[in-house]
Amino acid sequence: MSAERLTRYQQLAEEIADGIRAGLLRPGERLPSVRQTCELRGVSPSTVFQAYGQLESQGLVEARARSGFYVRAAKRATRSTTLQAAKPSGEATPVAISELVFELLGSTRDADVVPLGSAFPAPHLFPFEALARSGARAMRRLPAARITGALTAGDGGLRQTLRRRYALHGVPLAEDELVITNGAMEALNLCLQAVTKPGDLVVVESPTFYAALQALERLHLKAVEVATDPREGVDIGALAVLLERQPVAACWFMPSFQNPLGALMPPERKQALVELLARHRVPLIEDDVYGELHAGARRPPPAKAFDREGGVLHCASFSKCLAPGYRVGWAAAGRYAPVVERLKMSSSLATALPSQLALADYLAQGGFDRHLRRLREALAGQQQHALKLVERHFPSGTRVTRPLGGYFLWLELPPQVDALALHHKARAHHISTAPGVLFSADRRFTHHLRLNVGHPGDPRFDGALRLLGELAHSV
Amino acid sequence: MSAERLTRYQQLAEEIADGIRAGLLRPGERLPSVRQTCELRGVSPSTVFQAYGQLESQGLVEARARSGFYVRAAKRATRSTTLQAAKPSGEATPVAISELVFELLGSTRDADVVPLGSAFPAPHLFPFEALARSGARAMRRLPAARITGALTAGDGGLRQTLRRRYALHGVPLAEDELVITNGAMEALNLCLQAVTKPGDLVVVESPTFYAALQALERLHLKAVEVATDPREGVDIGALAVLLERQPVAACWFMPSFQNPLGALMPPERKQALVELLARHRVPLIEDDVYGELHAGARRPPPAKAFDREGGVLHCASFSKCLAPGYRVGWAAAGRYAPVVERLKMSSSLATALPSQLALADYLAQGGFDRHLRRLREALAGQQQHALKLVERHFPSGTRVTRPLGGYFLWLELPPQVDALALHHKARAHHISTAPGVLFSADRRFTHHLRLNVGHPGDPRFDGALRLLGELAHSV
Repeated sequence: MSAERLTRYQQLAEEIADGIRAGLLRPGERLPSVRQTCELRGVSPSTVFQAYGQLESQGLVEARARSGFYVRAAKRATRSTTLQAAKPSGEATPVAISELVFELLGSTRDADVVPLGSAFPAPHLFPFEALARSGARAMRRLPAARITGALTAGDGGLRQTLRRRYALHGVPLAEDELVITNGAMEALNLCLQAVTKPGDLVVVESPTFYAALQALERLHLKAVEVATDPREGVDIGALAVLLERQPVAACWFMPSFQNPLGALMPPERKQALVELLARHRVPLIEDDVYGELHAGARRPPPAKAFDREGGVLHCASFSKCLAPGYRVGWAAAGRYAPVVERLKMSSSLATALPSQLALADYLAQGGFDRHLRRLREALAGQQQHALKLVERHFPSGTRVTRPLGGYFLWLELPPQVDALALHHKARAHHISTAPGVLFSADRRFTHHLRLNVGHPGDPRFDGALRLLGELAHSV
Repeated sequence: MSAERLTRYQQLAEEIADGIRAGLLRPGERLPSVRQTCELRGVSPSTVFQAYGQLESQGLVEARARSGFYVRAAKRATRSTTLQAAKPSGEATPVAISELVFELLGSTRDADVVPLGSAFPAPHLFPFEALARSGARAMRRLPAARITGALTAGDGGLRQTLRRRYALHGVPLAEDELVITNGAMEALNLCLQAVTKPGDLVVVESPTFYAALQALERLHLKAVEVATDPREGVDIGALAVLLERQPVAACWFMPSFQNPLGALMPPERKQALVELLARHRVPLIEDDVYGELHAGARRPPPAKAFDREGGVLHCASFSKCLAPGYRVGWAAAGRYAPVVERLKMSSSLATALPSQLALADYLAQGGFDRHLRRLREALAGQQQHALKLVERHFPSGTRVTRPLGGYFLWLELPPQVDALALHHKARAHHISTAPGVLFSADRRFTHHLRLNVGHPGDPRFDGALRLLGELAHSV
């Protein structure tokens, strides 16, 4: 996850992408072989593979079995780039979104509903049997005294393993920086509480994950949105203006595979963000729950990788990449770690031990990275498949993101399509969606939808996506 | 748990207690046999057993094997009754206790410390092996779709089982009233948040459980304390005066086996409390985590049993009576249940499923009540044992509660003993205690201690208690 190596392959990918956009490499044309490019550029084969992988997940090239990489038809490649950054007002807004979220997403988990509005990928993607075996082994082996003695910060073995993973990804953590939580949701909420008091102003992305808005509402905070590019995330210039204009208590951002846009801030942008916030002494709450679900070859570095002053509170979990339902997340909260630990103690005391130990045992078995590779491949393949269905069945004028990770698509429908009406119509057909109004404090994004495409190999999903596209023609 | 039956055996117990206090029955004298009393009073044998059991746990009589019940020496019986209700100021106090709690109790869980300050009973009292077997069975059997589809409110099977237990105890719950939480601590926090906004006034007991003070602090609430009798709990008259004097957002009480006093409000007093609060439309957050740990024959009814208008938010858990570390608690939040569910969703999404399913499976096996009987017996026996040690080794003038359930003793040391100094001295000897200053917003109870006596059969505890008593002589 070191920034330097990423920069090299990203540079290469960017140059090839420029070549494609400029027409120097045309649709159907074969890219130079990996060996050729190595010689030509003086880089390692892995750098070339990573660059080609990135271009593939951007939809600019496609791999053909035993043949190499080819430039794809331009239409798909450009479509995603035409989705423009929203222009938020920049005004502070009190938040009242919880009721709407509850009403619109309450049905997501009904067994007879196709959950295009859900936030979780398909259950068959997760190694639940291996986790159950690990849980049984760990709980039986455990001396009773360790069960009642577990600390608020979480199981020592699990914390050690996590710390090692951070280090491997180029993010050294302090000894006591990690606090294990009841999913990333609790981590984010505790971090937000650690750095704010009622009435404070918090900067969020535009559009933003509705749970961030719910957290602000619960803690009586005000939201101000910052322009967010659908591909590259938060607009640093716009943020700098915001920070000059008013006192800000914190930023809550998802720099990697933002929900709902899927935007991935390039490493330089993440670094600039961390440096800007450090100058203003504004803490960054970094929601990184999709970081492991990169379509490219390597995990993008979190903003936390550029944190020199302990101002980044990095939150993540196993809920989206390994063990939904186990509710194990964590915060690496920098200089706020002691405050977060005290808040954890006073709000839920400790995180469930059976879940923590099942994960610690599973991680010690060594299959996590293999599982992640398969999961990423399945999600990336399904994204391509879903994009084809969207292009085929949705009204012309529909714009769609093409994220480099995660499993959401963000659709901008033609302006005359009322996405909330479409949501209700789809519900009548047993399809849930996450309409755009959920993703801002002032209910903009009226003709937008977030779709969960994390369900590979499920014909119900294909049917639902097709039907949804057809319904969109008539709303 | 019906109030009527309790009243009958309590009436009988009270009459006998009056007889003992009046000297009609003298120390060493044998009580009439169960059969005699049945004939004399026209009551059932179970009523007599319950009455004798209550007298026993009050320390007024003692059972001798194969011989019957005998009146105990008066000294012990009166000692507990001389502990007087504290006189709180009745003023609203902003709360800042968290740092102190963290500092003083942080060491409780070090393996080399005898945890007299801990809030958990001895680990060997819990059926962790059976729970691990249940967890393994439940997780392996579960279809993956149910893992990702589990609702915020909690596993349906577990909620059904809990609802049945409430009904058996005479407390009918509404269909969707239960929300499963990450321990009772999260339940209490969510309930408090559901009924307050920053700046509000909340009534707590005096002394009160420090976690209630921490929750108030976290949510920017003000505490006002109400006089609390060491035996019978909240003073209803004093509360009525408080309610007339100022707007109150909620009460947070522990009507059964209050922490730290161990006070048990009699059913009539609970009923009067619920009715008083209903008249004022003030919700009652009822912390009932020790309810299952009664020394008497039957579970005391919670205040919730008298709730006609959904104003009682009843919170409990398995953490103190079955499965510490599993973090499974719940709220039966009356008319506030939908608000609590939304808050749960937005603050930690859902409770860990492995823990919930382990408990659901364990409860379905039918050994819970047998376990509880053994646990209660072990705790009640240990309380007698610990009381003897306290009487023998602590300075004269020490007053101590004699609770009818739970596993705490509350010691009022002679006024010249600085309990905080004693705490620090004990820590140097690897003994933790919970000093009295933790139990009020304004750091009263300077010569008080809460001791955990939930560790039967552990000679380390006997030694620690003895040493603590000796140290108290020299502080």
